[in-house]
Amino acid sequence: MTTESLLKRFRISKLMPRIATHAASPGTVNYVGRKREAPVRIQVMEYHEDHFQEKEIKAIGEILPLKNSPMVTWVNVTGVHDTSVIESIGDAYGIHSLVLEDIANTTQRPKLEEYDGYLFAVVKMTYIDTKSGNIIIEQLSLIIGQNYILSFQEKEEDVLNGLRQRIRTGKGRIRKMGSDYLLYAILDSIVDFYFTVLEQLGDRIEDLEETLLKQADQAMLNDIYHLKQDLIFLRKSIWPMREVISSMQHAEHKLITKQVGFFLRDAYDHTIQVIETVETFRDMASGMQDLYLSTISNKMNEVMKVLTIFAAIFIPLTFLAGVYGMNFHVIPELSIKYGYFAWWGVVLTLGAGMLIYFKRKKWL
Amino acid sequence: MTTESLLKRFRISKLMPRIATHAASPGTVNYVGRKREAPVRIQVMEYHEDHFQEKEIKAIGEILPLKNSPMVTWVNVTGVHDTSVIESIGDAYGIHSLVLEDIANTTQRPKLEEYDGYLFAVVKMTYIDTKSGNIIIEQLSLIIGQNYILSFQEKEEDVLNGLRQRIRTGKGRIRKMGSDYLLYAILDSIVDFYFTVLEQLGDRIEDLEETLLKQADQAMLNDIYHLKQDLIFLRKSIWPMREVISSMQHAEHKLITKQVGFFLRDAYDHTIQVIETVETFRDMASGMQDLYLSTISNKMNEVMKVLTIFAAIFIPLTFLAGVYGMNFHVIPELSIKYGYFAWWGVVLTLGAGMLIYFKRKKWL
Amino acid sequence: MTTESLLKRFRISKLMPRIATHAASPGTVNYVGRKREAPVRIQVMEYHEDHFQEKEIKAIGEILPLKNSPMVTWVNVTGVHDTSVIESIGDAYGIHSLVLEDIANTTQRPKLEEYDGYLFAVVKMTYIDTKSGNIIIEQLSLIIGQNYILSFQEKEEDVLNGLRQRIRTGKGRIRKMGSDYLLYAILDSIVDFYFTVLEQLGDRIEDLEETLLKQADQAMLNDIYHLKQDLIFLRKSIWPMREVISSMQHAEHKLITKQVGFFLRDAYDHTIQVIETVETFRDMASGMQDLYLSTISNKMNEVMKVLTIFAAIFIPLTFLAGVYGMNFHVIPELSIKYGYFAWWGVVLTLGAGMLIYFKRKKWL
Amino acid sequence: MTTESLLKRFRISKLMPRIATHAASPGTVNYVGRKREAPVRIQVMEYHEDHFQEKEIKAIGEILPLKNSPMVTWVNVTGVHDTSVIESIGDAYGIHSLVLEDIANTTQRPKLEEYDGYLFAVVKMTYIDTKSGNIIIEQLSLIIGQNYILSFQEKEEDVLNGLRQRIRTGKGRIRKMGSDYLLYAILDSIVDFYFTVLEQLGDRIEDLEETLLKQADQAMLNDIYHLKQDLIFLRKSIWPMREVISSMQHAEHKLITKQVGFFLRDAYDHTIQVIETVETFRDMASGMQDLYLSTISNKMNEVMKVLTIFAAIFIPLTFLAGVYGMNFHVIPELSIKYGYFAWWGVVLTLGAGMLIYFKRKKWL
Amino acid sequence: MTTESLLKRFRISKLMPRIATHAASPGTVNYVGRKREAPVRIQVMEYHEDHFQEKEIKAIGEILPLKNSPMVTWVNVTGVHDTSVIESIGDAYGIHSLVLEDIANTTQRPKLEEYDGYLFAVVKMTYIDTKSGNIIIEQLSLIIGQNYILSFQEKEEDVLNGLRQRIRTGKGRIRKMGSDYLLYAILDSIVDFYFTVLEQLGDRIEDLEETLLKQADQAMLNDIYHLKQDLIFLRKSIWPMREVISSMQHAEHKLITKQVGFFLRDAYDHTIQVIETVETFRDMASGMQDLYLSTISNKMNEVMKVLTIFAAIFIPLTFLAGVYGMNFHVIPELSIKYGYFAWWGVVLTLGAGMLIYFKRKKWL
Repeated sequence: MTTESLLKRFRISKLMPRIATHAASPGTVNYVGRKREAPVRIQVMEYHEDHFQEKEIKAIGEILPLKNSPMVTWVNVTGVHDTSVIESIGDAYGIHSLVLEDIANTTQRPKLEEYDGYLFAVVKMTYIDTKSGNIIIEQLSLIIGQNYILSFQEKEEDVLNGLRQRIRTGKGRIRKMGSDYLLYAILDSIVDFYFTVLEQLGDRIEDLEETLLKQADQAMLNDIYHLKQDLIFLRKSIWPMREVISSMQHAEHKLITKQVGFFLRDAYDHTIQVIETVETFRDMASGMQDLYLSTISNKMNEVMKVLTIFAAIFIPLTFLAGVYGMNFHVIPELSIKYGYFAWWGVVLTLGAGMLIYFKRKKWL
Repeated sequence: MTTESLLKRFRISKLMPRIATHAASPGTVNYVGRKREAPVRIQVMEYHEDHFQEKEIKAIGEILPLKNSPMVTWVNVTGVHDTSVIESIGDAYGIHSLVLEDIANTTQRPKLEEYDGYLFAVVKMTYIDTKSGNIIIEQLSLIIGQNYILSFQEKEEDVLNGLRQRIRTGKGRIRKMGSDYLLYAILDSIVDFYFTVLEQLGDRIEDLEETLLKQADQAMLNDIYHLKQDLIFLRKSIWPMREVISSMQHAEHKLITKQVGFFLRDAYDHTIQVIETVETFRDMASGMQDLYLSTISNKMNEVMKVLTIFAAIFIPLTFLAGVYGMNFHVIPELSIKYGYFAWWGVVLTLGAGMLIYFKRKKWL
Repeated sequence: MTTESLLKRFRISKLMPRIATHAASPGTVNYVGRKREAPVRIQVMEYHEDHFQEKEIKAIGEILPLKNSPMVTWVNVTGVHDTSVIESIGDAYGIHSLVLEDIANTTQRPKLEEYDGYLFAVVKMTYIDTKSGNIIIEQLSLIIGQNYILSFQEKEEDVLNGLRQRIRTGKGRIRKMGSDYLLYAILDSIVDFYFTVLEQLGDRIEDLEETLLKQADQAMLNDIYHLKQDLIFLRKSIWPMREVISSMQHAEHKLITKQVGFFLRDAYDHTIQVIETVETFRDMASGMQDLYLSTISNKMNEVMKVLTIFAAIFIPLTFLAGVYGMNFHVIPELSIKYGYFAWWGVVLTLGAGMLIYFKRKKWL
Repeated sequence: MTTESLLKRFRISKLMPRIATHAASPGTVNYVGRKREAPVRIQVMEYHEDHFQEKEIKAIGEILPLKNSPMVTWVNVTGVHDTSVIESIGDAYGIHSLVLEDIANTTQRPKLEEYDGYLFAVVKMTYIDTKSGNIIIEQLSLIIGQNYILSFQEKEEDVLNGLRQRIRTGKGRIRKMGSDYLLYAILDSIVDFYFTVLEQLGDRIEDLEETLLKQADQAMLNDIYHLKQDLIFLRKSIWPMREVISSMQHAEHKLITKQVGFFLRDAYDHTIQVIETVETFRDMASGMQDLYLSTISNKMNEVMKVLTIFAAIFIPLTFLAGVYGMNFHVIPELSIKYGYFAWWGVVLTLGAGMLIYFKRKKWL
Repeated sequence: MTTESLLKRFRISKLMPRIATHAASPGTVNYVGRKREAPVRIQVMEYHEDHFQEKEIKAIGEILPLKNSPMVTWVNVTGVHDTSVIESIGDAYGIHSLVLEDIANTTQRPKLEEYDGYLFAVVKMTYIDTKSGNIIIEQLSLIIGQNYILSFQEKEEDVLNGLRQRIRTGKGRIRKMGSDYLLYAILDSIVDFYFTVLEQLGDRIEDLEETLLKQADQAMLNDIYHLKQDLIFLRKSIWPMREVISSMQHAEHKLITKQVGFFLRDAYDHTIQVIETVETFRDMASGMQDLYLSTISNKMNEVMKVLTIFAAIFIPLTFLAGVYGMNFHVIPELSIKYGYFAWWGVVLTLGAGMLIYFKRKKWL
């Protein structure tokens, strides 16, 4: 199996959760996803209007005192393959076991669930892998409490780094507001990255359109096919985001203030825009595929027609040559003095006549 | 008729209930399904936080006392072709005759119905037959009472065996909870098996994709066709499951506690995920079919074009050979000394010229 | 015009009501449908838990006293082309003139209308004509009162005969219950017959599938086309049935008791199943058509390819034969002793070479 | 530009309102539609259970006293290009300027608007032009007051003539009822004419189906295309009618009595039936197009195959003839006594062999 | 890259907002759109029933006093690339920072947002560029307060010039009404321009239809493709307008009076009509594409068939010529006196026979 098909296998397996766990009891925290070796990293940010502290936690025990911090606390866990870490944090914050199970399972569908005292959200981050140029879709699980957010991501990436930088430098209003605004800021960063991915897809569509008008070949068909597959996967991860943000915004969680509601409405609008752009791109890809297929078939037909006309002209002429190649003892034309030249006259007239006829009929 | 088409005939007949019974009065318990010989098995599990008892019932009379057991009782009937057994159990538990009729009819659509004192659910279990590799869809009828569940399945299978093992060993929270949690556990096991089937379908899709890129042939078309048919059947059985679990969760049955509601929400999410994966697979199968058809047609056209060009080059040359095969008494060129070699010169120049022309036109 | 197209013309005209009456005042009872000669038959069944009486009415006057019968009365009118009969019965039971107009018009869409003191329902019965094997769709109009049902059907058929037999013999619970249960029993019989028709269509689909895998020809295309048309017509008549039964079940008519509500829910489920099966059949028919078209086109292409290769091999060889058929005075090869055999050597090598080349390129 | 394309241009322009007025202030009454010369006609009908009066108004001033007539008054204006007439009537009855603007604009979408004291409805009438056989769609604007209806139509047609005749003769219940029943009667007449148009389209579909089975040619494709375009236009004008009648029926206008509500429900049912028939016809037209395209392509392929086989048989035989036409000095076969006849034996055997082979392969 | 593809690149980039700002804090006003050099223009119109004043603002400070003007004030900003201007105006009127951010971002989706004391609407204006003939889609952001409207457009265009002229001349009711009517008048002007664009598209469709019936070529395919793309973009900008106007109309903003509600309902109807026309045009474009493809394929096939028949007739005749060109020593026919003429007889008979056969088979 080639590397490419391995990659694809991975993408398809992303659609199916918990296969390995169907003999396990629900609520058991089992890691489902690609094998990983990297150690789990726990980063903590605590901030206030005029205070900011960032540290990396080595021992699980350090998490417990954070819960009662008067500041907004953002605990970010990179790597969910070490389920003992998830369970320890879950215990510390009193999280339901089903939530912990969902965090460890990186094939969840984006969703928002309300529990006593906290919200649980699963979203999908997307970005372009700088090395391979592939579109990567990773899961981010969020637990939003009164003054804390716990986030669990699969591996190091840079979707949220811009946001972290903003917190560190204290730019904008982020440090002045609560955990609900932090939630918004995270979602906003994620949706912005969807636009980056769409931009790349838009470039691919434009390149394909240009190629289409110049020189269409078989490779194009594969490109359109892969573009469509990418759009199917992107759509599958962004579509439920709409519901997630919408229910955050409309539901009456006391965790989310009215002021942040304005911001969530904005994020919601952007999500709708991503969805519509994906749909537009799908329409455009289908349109291109149709145009490509008819173009290729038209060109092909043109070639075949010209060649067939070519043959159609020479076949009767060959017959005429064959006639005077016969060995009948008596063929009067053969002994005519300028018979050969007369024959050429007939042949050329006939050939020209057919050419003109075909032109008139607009076959050429 | 071949075995395969017999299998298919069975699958189509699965879509149509009660044909044999249309002269019968509604509420009459008639078995509708494949002929079966195997004796009906009745397994009973009774459990409590610190108690577990499992037995197999031989005489129908043993069922009656179970109803008043203080423990959670799970009566599982394997084989619904012996309608007298269904009727006896129905009498013992006071079940409506329409429910009994539906249990005996293995071609029901998944549904949830509320009756006084109990819920009646019909669901479809799916798994891969280990012998034939086929996808099997079987019906499971469930009656959920205050502290009991009656389940009726068509034949022995292993979808629920993992769950049974969990009850036996007392792992997880199952023995600590009521019949509503048992209901959830059953549904959860069933939905998990859908993922197993989807995994197999995902593998088939990947294999097809790989074949497509390498060597596409007619067999592929049949494979895609059968894949699509399988997806149609799978979709038909999973789609109504969504409503079943949703109405369990949202409706205000006092049989289902709020605590189990959390779990059902989880099962609901997984059902949605199965549905979306089925839809994605359908999109992918359609995409592959389109790509296959255009690939095959492109290749075909390429071959035809090359061959036609081949012929187009030789047909005029043959004409030229024919010209000098004519027997006119006077053909001046024939007596030229190096006429033959000059002829070859003309022919080769012409052939090469046409080749170059076709290359320039990008026909080759 | 052939008999078949006459049949079809009739089916299309079934879609359009009241064309002949557009100059008439609304509420005027005009018969719309095929010309009929058969006399109108009025059958009456009166029953009670321990009483049953069946008679055929000859004079319209006999209907009036039936209205006040203490038993459940089922008046069935076969033939709606004699509008005076409909009007007489309408007068006797105090039915709205719009209802009578709808009864006489056999091209109605299934619907349920509530009037003071009675319900009016239009449904479509379907069955397979035993002679022609065609699917027949007939209209049944029902007026449901407190303890009577008036039914109007176009001609004698056997959809409801099983039910009549059940009433006669007193089997099941029918004689113990009211007119609402009779309504359910009628609907249930009709829906059951839909399954019979679906079974026949299922057989046709299987036969087509088998043919498809063996030997596909043009006739198949017509078969799929007619199958699809039949499904369009079936769908058109079953789809609104869903609403009819649903509104019977959910609306709070005091004519329909809660007990019968359970049964109607069952009939509703079966209607949904019919609808879903029709949709599944449509998907399958489309799938088959696609497969058929690609199969036929693939086969065709294969044939063309082989033949073209055949020609492509012989055309250059013929050229070579032509070369040595030329009459140039000096053609050195001609006088070589084994020239002829050498020529054959060249020709056979070339032919074999091309064959091998085409095989390698997987063109053969 | 041909007459046909002019007609089409008109139809497309029908889709777009008010283009000429975009610099004008909203509420300005500007005529939008085809240029017309015919003078505007104003017909008035006044009636009561036992009174009927019909007159034609010449001077606008005669309209004012009509408003206070105790009878039901139907003022029908034929021709909306003279906007001063519309404005005068509007002033007399106190109609909102937006309504007057909409009346003068014959490209409205069917709609129902409620104003203080009256309802404003725009509907589309359709009928077959007896001269050209074309489907004509005209706009009818209706203002429904307590005891009057003002109607504005584009030109003389016979859609409402049957209704007028009924009022004149006093047949049916029309003269016994109010302006709401008159509204129903108008809508009912319009919907009935839709059925007439559908009947004609049904005939076209049947003719096409018959032709399809006999002899399919290119003209058919154009016919199906025009049929589909006609269905698109018909659908566009009937679809919003559904909402119009539905909101008349459900909304609680005191202008519409409960008794007339029954009749409107009937008109609503017919509208649904028109819509469903249009959809069915679209499905049928698509089905026919598919069948046509595959039939034509199958036939074509058959012809090509036969011809190619024909060529494939003769090309090798011609090669064989070429072989013995060569002038090698030594060709042993040539001097064999019955060589020529042996050659024919070989050729005929080969030809027959190929024929048999192709037959076996089912290529012929 | 050609100019055309640059234009297209721009159109695609229009679908994606805020890409450049994903590292920025939400609420930061960043310009997103094409680079512009032109200076920002601020036009102010103040009016009252009997007062009208128009001026151009040079210094930002002049804006502040406008807010408390007792007249209706329309501040129109042309050019949103100078974000400092937007921020100044925002500060003056107390606008939320998210709104200012959206104004600067010209890739918004049409939407309506309610804030304390004002409404914020984003709409898309469309018009035909007089130079290039292209369809241009520009964003217009509107802030509607108690007695003012702030509008922000990308560049000078003439969509709103007709409205401005009406205000200047005081025609119609505009000067008698408040800022809500001005809002309506703006929306109405915009929707009217959609009809102008649709008219141009309608002309293109008609031209294509005419060409289709006369002479179809490859260029047509590109035209249909571009038409479809234009429709996709137009649909994307008009579709959300429906919601915008609908929520203006239905929501209970005290900023919008009931009287203006009537007018908004009218604008809403026109928006629906634009949407339906776009959908109809898409249906028509698809229909044309189908017809074109089948026409082209039919014509092609006809040509190929005629040519193949041509070849099929001459190939056997050439064989016959080859036969008598062979050099067998004994070929009895050769020495027959009129053998040559007999041969011609056979050949002509055969040729004519084949012609007749092909005609009979309707292959010609």
